[in-house]
Amino acid sequence: MLEDRLKSVIRDIPDFPQPGIVFKDITPILKDQDLCKAIVDELAFRLKDLAIDAIAGVESRGFLFGMMLANKLNIPFIPIRKQGKLPFKTIAESYKLEYGQATIEVHEDAFTPGSRILIHDDLLATGGTVVAASKLIEKLEGIIVGYAFIISLDFLQSLGRLTRFSDNIIALARYE
Amino acid sequence: MLEDRLKSVIRDIPDFPQPGIVFKDITPILKDQDLCKAIVDELAFRLKDLAIDAIAGVESRGFLFGMMLANKLNIPFIPIRKQGKLPFKTIAESYKLEYGQATIEVHEDAFTPGSRILIHDDLLATGGTVVAASKLIEKLEGIIVGYAFIISLDFLQSLGRLTRFSDNIIALARYE
Repeated sequence: MLEDRLKSVIRDIPDFPQPGIVFKDITPILKDQDLCKAIVDELAFRLKDLAIDAIAGVESRGFLFGMMLANKLNIPFIPIRKQGKLPFKTIAESYKLEYGQATIEVHEDAFTPGSRILIHDDLLATGGTVVAASKLIEKLEGIIVGYAFIISLDFLQSLGRLTRFSDNIIALARYE
Repeated sequence: MLEDRLKSVIRDIPDFPQPGIVFKDITPILKDQDLCKAIVDELAFRLKDLAIDAIAGVESRGFLFGMMLANKLNIPFIPIRKQGKLPFKTIAESYKLEYGQATIEVHEDAFTPGSRILIHDDLLATGGTVVAASKLIEKLEGIIVGYAFIISLDFLQSLGRLTRFSDNIIALARYE
Protein backbone atom coordinates (compact mmCIF):
# COMPACT_ATOMS: atom_id res chain seq x y z
CA MET A 1 0.00 0.00 0.00
CA LEU A 2 1.33 3.43 -0.95
CA GLU A 3 0.96 4.92 2.53
CA ASP A 4 3.07 2.12 4.03
CA ARG A 5 5.71 2.47 1.32
CA LEU A 6 5.90 6.21 2.00
CA LYS A 7 6.11 5.85 5.77
CA SER A 8 8.85 3.24 5.39
CA VAL A 9 11.14 5.77 3.63
CA ILE A 10 10.12 9.13 5.16
CA ARG A 11 12.83 9.92 7.67
CA ASP A 12 12.26 11.46 11.11
CA ILE A 13 14.79 14.18 11.97
CA PRO A 14 14.54 15.13 15.65
CA ASP A 15 14.95 18.77 16.70
CA PHE A 16 14.77 20.24 13.19
CA PRO A 17 14.39 23.06 12.40
CA GLN A 18 14.24 23.75 16.12
CA PRO A 19 14.35 21.81 19.40
CA GLY A 20 11.24 19.75 20.06
CA ILE A 21 10.14 19.48 16.42
CA VAL A 22 10.41 16.12 14.63
CA PHE A 23 10.86 16.93 10.95
CA LYS A 24 9.58 14.59 8.24
CA ASP A 25 12.38 14.35 5.65
CA ILE A 26 11.14 13.47 2.15
CA THR A 27 14.55 13.35 0.48
CA PRO A 28 14.66 9.52 0.67
CA ILE A 29 11.48 9.49 -1.44
CA LEU A 30 13.30 11.41 -4.16
CA LYS A 31 15.85 8.63 -4.47
CA ASP A 32 13.12 6.20 -5.56
CA GLN A 33 11.56 7.56 -8.74
CA ASP A 34 9.26 4.55 -9.06
CA LEU A 35 7.79 5.65 -5.74
CA CYS A 36 7.63 9.27 -6.99
CA LYS A 37 5.72 8.09 -10.04
CA ALA A 38 3.33 6.12 -7.81
CA ILE A 39 2.72 9.29 -5.76
CA VAL A 40 1.85 11.33 -8.84
CA ASP A 41 -0.32 8.56 -10.31
CA GLU A 42 -2.24 8.19 -7.05
CA LEU A 43 -2.79 11.94 -6.68
CA ALA A 44 -3.93 12.19 -10.31
CA PHE A 45 -6.34 9.29 -9.82
CA ARG A 46 -7.84 10.76 -6.66
CA LEU A 47 -8.21 14.19 -8.27
CA LYS A 48 -9.65 13.02 -11.58
CA ASP A 49 -13.22 14.22 -10.96
CA LEU A 50 -12.35 17.73 -9.74
CA ALA A 51 -12.06 19.41 -13.18
CA ILE A 52 -8.87 21.19 -12.12
CA ASP A 53 -7.59 24.03 -14.33
CA ALA A 54 -4.17 24.48 -12.69
CA ILE A 55 -1.93 23.24 -9.85
CA ALA A 56 -0.50 25.89 -7.50
CA GLY A 57 2.64 24.66 -5.74
CA VAL A 58 4.32 26.29 -2.77
CA GLU A 59 8.09 26.98 -2.89
CA SER A 60 10.33 25.02 -2.61
CA ARG A 61 9.37 21.44 -1.87
CA GLY A 62 5.93 21.97 -3.39
CA PHE A 63 7.67 22.44 -6.74
CA LEU A 64 8.91 18.83 -6.81
CA PHE A 65 5.63 16.94 -7.03
CA GLY A 66 3.46 19.92 -7.98
CA MET A 67 5.18 20.25 -11.33
CA MET A 68 5.02 16.51 -12.01
CA LEU A 69 1.34 16.44 -11.12
CA ALA A 70 0.59 19.40 -13.40
CA ASN A 71 2.45 17.63 -16.18
CA LYS A 72 0.59 14.38 -15.56
CA LEU A 73 -2.76 16.21 -15.71
CA ASN A 74 -1.53 18.43 -18.59
CA ILE A 75 -2.58 21.64 -16.87
CA PRO A 76 -0.56 24.75 -15.93
CA PHE A 77 1.72 24.86 -12.90
CA ILE A 78 1.54 28.05 -10.82
CA PRO A 79 4.55 28.76 -8.60
CA ILE A 80 3.80 30.40 -5.25
CA ARG A 81 7.03 31.87 -3.98
CA LYS A 82 8.61 33.73 -1.10
CA GLN A 83 8.60 37.50 -1.25
CA GLY A 84 10.78 39.08 -3.92
CA LYS A 85 11.36 35.94 -5.97
CA LEU A 86 8.71 36.22 -8.69
CA PRO A 87 9.79 38.76 -11.29
CA PHE A 88 6.49 39.96 -12.81
CA LYS A 89 3.66 41.86 -11.07
CA THR A 90 2.66 40.01 -7.92
CA ILE A 91 0.17 40.06 -5.09
CA ALA A 92 1.36 39.17 -1.60
CA GLU A 93 0.00 37.59 1.56
CA SER A 94 1.73 37.58 4.95
CA TYR A 95 1.25 35.08 7.73
CA LYS A 96 2.52 34.52 11.25
CA LEU A 97 5.34 32.17 12.11
CA GLU A 98 6.19 31.13 15.65
CA TYR A 99 8.67 33.99 15.65
CA GLY A 100 8.01 36.82 13.21
CA GLN A 101 6.21 36.47 9.90
CA ALA A 102 6.62 35.33 6.31
CA THR A 103 5.24 36.60 3.03
CA ILE A 104 4.42 34.63 -0.11
CA GLU A 105 3.50 35.90 -3.55
CA VAL A 106 1.91 34.82 -6.80
CA HIS A 107 1.97 36.45 -10.22
CA GLU A 108 -1.09 38.55 -10.99
CA ASP A 109 -1.39 36.83 -14.37
CA ALA A 110 -0.98 33.33 -12.95
CA PHE A 111 -4.51 32.33 -14.02
CA THR A 112 -7.77 33.86 -15.20
CA PRO A 113 -10.59 34.65 -12.73
CA GLY A 114 -12.87 31.68 -12.17
CA SER A 115 -10.11 29.11 -12.73
CA ARG A 116 -10.36 25.97 -10.63
CA ILE A 117 -7.11 25.69 -8.67
CA LEU A 118 -5.70 22.79 -6.67
CA ILE A 119 -3.13 23.79 -4.04
CA HIS A 120 -0.21 21.46 -3.43
CA ASP A 121 2.57 21.33 -0.88
CA ASP A 122 4.64 18.37 0.23
CA LEU A 123 3.54 18.56 3.86
CA LEU A 124 0.64 19.96 5.88
CA ALA A 125 1.81 20.99 9.34
CA THR A 126 0.20 24.01 11.03
CA GLY A 127 -1.28 25.11 7.70
CA GLY A 128 -0.07 28.70 7.88
CA THR A 129 1.57 28.72 4.47
CA VAL A 130 -1.29 26.89 2.79
CA VAL A 131 -3.92 29.22 4.25
CA ALA A 132 -1.90 32.19 2.96
CA ALA A 133 -1.64 30.49 -0.45
CA SER A 134 -5.41 29.99 -0.42
CA LYS A 135 -5.98 33.68 0.26
CA LEU A 136 -3.71 34.55 -2.68
CA ILE A 137 -5.74 32.31 -4.98
CA GLU A 138 -9.02 33.82 -3.80
CA LYS A 139 -7.69 37.39 -4.17
CA LEU A 140 -7.22 36.60 -7.87
CA GLU A 141 -10.75 35.17 -7.98
CA GLY A 142 -9.62 31.59 -8.33
CA ILE A 143 -11.82 28.77 -7.06
CA ILE A 144 -9.98 26.44 -4.68
CA VAL A 145 -11.13 22.95 -5.61
CA GLY A 146 -8.92 21.12 -3.16
CA TYR A 147 -5.57 20.41 -1.55
CA ALA A 148 -3.10 17.63 -2.19
CA PHE A 149 -0.26 16.82 0.19
CA ILE A 150 2.20 13.97 0.38
CA ILE A 151 2.24 14.12 4.19
CA SER A 152 -0.27 15.43 6.72
CA LEU A 153 0.64 15.85 10.38
CA ASP A 154 -2.93 15.19 11.46
CA PHE A 155 -1.97 15.46 15.13
CA LEU A 156 -1.53 19.20 14.60
CA GLN A 157 -5.24 19.37 13.74
CA SER A 158 -4.84 21.82 10.86
CA LEU A 159 -7.39 20.36 8.47
CA GLY A 160 -10.06 22.59 9.98
CA ARG A 161 -8.13 25.65 8.83
CA LEU A 162 -8.54 24.52 5.21
CA THR A 163 -12.14 23.31 5.12
CA ARG A 164 -13.45 26.85 4.87
CA PHE A 165 -11.78 26.95 1.44
CA SER A 166 -12.44 23.35 0.31
CA ASP A 167 -13.39 19.98 1.78
CA ASN A 168 -11.32 18.08 -0.76
CA ILE A 169 -8.12 17.47 1.18
CA ILE A 170 -5.92 14.60 0.09
CA ALA A 171 -2.83 13.44 1.99
CA LEU A 172 -1.07 10.20 1.11
CA ALA A 173 0.77 9.64 4.39
CA ARG A 174 -1.10 10.70 7.51
CA TYR A 175 0.43 10.87 10.96
CA GLU A 176 -2.26 10.80 13.66
CA MET B 1 12.17 24.06 -33.19
CA LEU B 2 12.25 23.83 -29.41
CA GLU B 3 14.61 26.79 -28.93
CA ASP B 4 12.28 29.06 -30.90
CA ARG B 5 9.25 27.82 -28.97
CA LEU B 6 11.04 28.54 -25.70
CA LYS B 7 12.23 31.99 -26.71
CA SER B 8 8.72 32.90 -27.85
CA VAL B 9 7.34 32.36 -24.31
CA ILE B 10 10.28 33.27 -22.04
CA ARG B 11 9.48 36.74 -20.76
CA ASP B 12 12.01 39.56 -20.31
CA ILE B 13 11.57 41.49 -17.04
CA PRO B 14 13.68 44.66 -17.05
CA ASP B 15 15.41 45.78 -13.85
CA PHE B 16 14.79 42.57 -11.89
CA PRO B 17 16.05 41.70 -9.35
CA GLN B 18 17.99 44.95 -9.56
CA PRO B 19 18.35 47.92 -11.93
CA GLY B 20 20.15 47.11 -15.17
CA ILE B 21 19.46 43.35 -15.09
CA VAL B 22 17.01 41.88 -17.62
CA PHE B 23 15.54 38.79 -15.96
CA LYS B 24 14.39 35.80 -17.99
CA ASP B 25 11.03 34.74 -16.57
CA ILE B 26 10.22 31.06 -17.13
CA THR B 27 6.76 31.11 -15.52
CA PRO B 28 5.03 31.32 -18.94
CA ILE B 29 6.70 28.00 -19.82
CA LEU B 30 5.03 26.40 -16.81
CA LYS B 31 1.61 27.26 -18.20
CA ASP B 32 2.27 25.05 -21.24
CA GLN B 33 2.84 21.52 -20.01
CA ASP B 34 3.19 20.19 -23.55
CA LEU B 35 6.19 22.48 -23.84
CA CYS B 36 7.45 21.31 -20.42
CA LYS B 37 7.21 17.72 -21.61
CA ALA B 38 9.11 18.64 -24.78
CA ILE B 39 11.86 20.19 -22.63
CA VAL B 40 12.24 17.06 -20.52
CA ASP B 41 12.11 14.77 -23.56
CA GLU B 42 14.79 16.81 -25.34
CA LEU B 43 17.08 16.88 -22.29
CA ALA B 44 16.63 13.13 -21.77
CA PHE B 45 17.45 12.50 -25.43
CA ARG B 46 20.57 14.63 -25.37
CA LEU B 47 21.77 13.03 -22.12
CA LYS B 48 21.07 9.43 -23.06
CA ASP B 49 24.70 8.37 -23.55
CA LEU B 50 26.09 9.86 -20.32
CA ALA B 51 25.22 6.92 -18.00
CA ILE B 52 23.92 9.31 -15.34
CA ASP B 53 23.30 7.93 -11.85
CA ALA B 54 21.43 10.94 -10.42
CA ILE B 55 20.23 14.47 -11.20
CA ALA B 56 21.23 17.22 -8.75
CA GLY B 57 18.88 20.21 -8.95
CA VAL B 58 19.45 23.62 -7.43
CA GLU B 59 16.72 25.22 -5.28
CA SER B 60 14.15 26.48 -6.16
CA ARG B 61 13.61 26.68 -9.91
CA GLY B 62 15.97 23.78 -10.51
CA PHE B 63 13.45 21.59 -8.70
CA LEU B 64 10.82 22.08 -11.41
CA PHE B 65 12.48 20.39 -14.36
CA GLY B 66 15.18 18.56 -12.38
CA MET B 67 12.61 16.36 -10.70
CA MET B 68 10.78 15.66 -13.96
CA LEU B 69 14.05 14.81 -15.69
CA ALA B 70 15.05 12.43 -12.89
CA ASN B 71 11.65 10.79 -13.14
CA LYS B 72 11.91 10.49 -16.91
CA LEU B 73 15.35 8.86 -16.60
CA ASN B 74 14.21 6.85 -13.54
CA ILE B 75 17.20 7.91 -11.45
CA PRO B 76 17.38 9.68 -8.05
CA PHE B 77 16.83 13.41 -7.67
CA ILE B 78 19.25 15.20 -5.32
CA PRO B 79 18.05 18.54 -3.93
CA ILE B 80 20.73 21.19 -3.46
CA ARG B 81 19.33 23.79 -1.10
CA LYS B 82 20.07 27.06 0.60
CA GLN B 83 21.73 26.92 4.00
CA GLY B 84 19.61 25.56 6.82
CA LYS B 85 16.92 23.96 4.68
CA LEU B 86 18.07 20.35 4.40
CA PRO B 87 17.30 18.51 7.65
CA PHE B 88 19.86 15.67 7.70
CA LYS B 89 23.67 15.95 7.91
CA THR B 90 24.91 18.31 5.21
CA ILE B 91 28.05 19.70 3.67
CA ALA B 92 28.09 23.36 2.64
CA GLU B 93 29.73 25.57 0.04
CA SER B 94 29.71 29.36 0.02
CA TYR B 95 30.10 31.63 -2.99
CA LYS B 96 30.22 35.32 -3.68
CA LEU B 97 27.27 37.37 -4.83
CA GLU B 98 27.57 40.90 -6.14
CA TYR B 99 26.86 42.03 -2.59
CA GLY B 100 27.67 39.57 0.17
CA GLN B 101 27.63 35.81 -0.17
CA ALA B 102 25.35 32.79 -0.30
CA THR B 103 25.71 29.23 0.97
CA ILE B 104 24.21 26.07 -0.48
CA GLU B 105 24.14 22.58 0.99
CA VAL B 106 23.62 18.96 0.05
CA HIS B 107 22.91 15.94 2.22
CA GLU B 108 26.00 13.88 3.03
CA ASP B 109 24.11 10.72 2.08
CA ALA B 110 22.76 12.17 -1.19
CA PHE B 111 24.71 9.63 -3.28
CA THR B 112 27.52 7.10 -2.98
CA PRO B 113 31.13 8.04 -3.90
CA GLY B 114 31.82 7.50 -7.59
CA SER B 115 28.23 8.24 -8.65
CA ARG B 116 27.85 10.00 -12.01
CA ILE B 117 25.93 13.20 -11.34
CA LEU B 118 24.30 15.62 -13.77
CA ILE B 119 23.76 19.13 -12.40
CA HIS B 120 20.62 20.99 -13.42
CA ASP B 121 19.37 24.51 -12.96
CA ASP B 122 16.84 26.43 -14.98
CA LEU B 123 19.26 29.17 -16.00
CA LEU B 124 23.02 29.67 -16.33
CA ALA B 125 23.93 33.29 -15.65
CA THR B 126 27.26 34.07 -13.94
CA GLY B 127 27.60 30.44 -12.87
CA GLY B 128 28.33 31.17 -9.21
CA THR B 129 25.65 28.86 -7.85
CA VAL B 130 26.43 26.06 -10.28
CA VAL B 131 30.17 26.18 -9.55
CA ALA B 132 29.37 25.95 -5.83
CA ALA B 133 27.03 23.03 -6.55
CA SER B 134 29.83 21.35 -8.52
CA LYS B 135 32.22 21.70 -5.58
CA LEU B 136 29.63 20.11 -3.30
CA ILE B 137 29.31 17.13 -5.63
CA GLU B 138 33.07 16.71 -5.85
CA LYS B 139 33.47 16.99 -2.05
CA LEU B 140 31.27 13.89 -1.80
CA GLU B 141 33.40 12.20 -4.49
CA GLY B 142 30.73 12.39 -7.15
CA ILE B 143 31.72 12.52 -10.82
CA ILE B 144 30.17 15.47 -12.63
CA VAL B 145 29.13 14.11 -16.03
CA GLY B 146 27.54 17.31 -17.28
CA TYR B 147 25.19 20.24 -16.91
CA ALA B 148 21.70 20.78 -18.25
CA PHE B 149 20.03 24.18 -18.33
CA ILE B 150 16.84 25.44 -19.92
CA ILE B 151 18.41 28.86 -20.56
CA SER B 152 22.01 30.01 -20.92
CA LEU B 153 22.96 33.68 -20.93
CA ASP B 154 25.94 33.03 -23.17
CA PHE B 155 26.79 36.75 -23.29
CA LEU B 156 27.90 36.48 -19.66
CA GLN B 157 30.59 34.02 -20.84
CA SER B 158 30.22 31.68 -17.89
CA LEU B 159 30.63 28.37 -19.74
CA GLY B 160 34.39 28.52 -19.12
CA ARG B 161 33.76 28.36 -15.37
CA LEU B 162 32.11 24.95 -15.81
CA THR B 163 34.39 23.22 -18.31
CA ARG B 164 36.95 22.42 -15.61
CA PHE B 165 34.28 20.12 -14.16
CA SER B 166 32.72 18.82 -17.41
CA ASP B 167 32.55 19.69 -21.10
CA ASN B 168 29.01 18.35 -21.44
CA ILE B 169 26.97 21.51 -21.11
CA ILE B 170 23.48 21.52 -22.56
CA ALA B 171 21.26 24.62 -22.75
CA LEU B 172 18.04 24.62 -24.74
CA ALA B 173 17.63 28.39 -25.19
CA ARG B 174 20.86 30.31 -25.63
CA TYR B 175 21.10 34.10 -25.58
CA GLU B 176 24.30 35.30 -27.25
